[in-house]
Amino acid sequence: MMTADNDAWLDAVNWNSEGLVPAIAQDVGTGKVLTLAWMNREALALTYTEQRAVYWSRSRQKLWRKGEESGHVQQLQQIRLDCDGDSVLLLVRQVGGIACHTGRERCFYRTLDNGAWKIDEAVLKDPATIYR
Amino acid sequence: MMTADNDAWLDAVNWNSEGLVPAIAQDVGTGKVLTLAWMNREALALTYTEQRAVYWSRSRQKLWRKGEESGHVQQLQQIRLDCDGDSVLLLVRQVGGIACHTGRERCFYRTLDNGAWKIDEAVLKDPATIYR
Repeated sequence: MMTADNDAWLDAVNWNSEGLVPAIAQDVGTGKVLTLAWMNREALALTYTEQRAVYWSRSRQKLWRKGEESGHVQQLQQIRLDCDGDSVLLLVRQVGGIACHTGRERCFYRTLDNGAWKIDEAVLKDPATIYR
Repeated sequence: MMTADNDAWLDAVNWNSEGLVPAIAQDVGTGKVLTLAWMNREALALTYTEQRAVYWSRSRQKLWRKGEESGHVQQLQQIRLDCDGDSVLLLVRQVGGIACHTGRERCFYRTLDNGAWKIDEAVLKDPATIYR
């Protein structure tokens, strides 16, 4: 049962005009920044109670339990909040070692190289075999 | 002089309805995620040309060269883009070892501990001596 007291930490978050906050996921093993996704209040509450990353899909307008289809769950180690309370940092263990829907380790697989984006991280698993 | 060709990498970014994109800064030395701030097109272009983090201050509605007052510049090592093109990751060297205006190493100095935010990172320098 949720009580007013339990909600205090959620009230401390400065949700934007859409009721969302950006959430960065960082792998505790490799230290790599894996993803940036968005959370509403319910998603952040569920992330804590379920100890796995739960986001708000802006494109699908619904809760998105990371890994619900792929199995690539982000197991929660820690939740951190920044000084302005308007962004969240998750320390996670990335199940399967793949965070990106492209089958790569993470979403940040492009780097700016001589004024052009260059892919410098490999596809580890064919997305067709991840999402059936 | 900017040419159409030079702008292609900026066109690849999916700017939000306000013309902004969230930018994560990660310290290349410690691996810590330091800050999440916002950039408009000009800020991202300047970050690349000046090789230091330049953000768009949403509160002040103007360009903000990180460290312009404090000296705590974020020297650019790499710019990365995510799969959707709607968030940017900067690998930086944090001059002075302080990224946060509170005088702490980084903005994410609070962790969720038994349902409450707890400060677990120290003030390294009194902000009154940083901003004169």
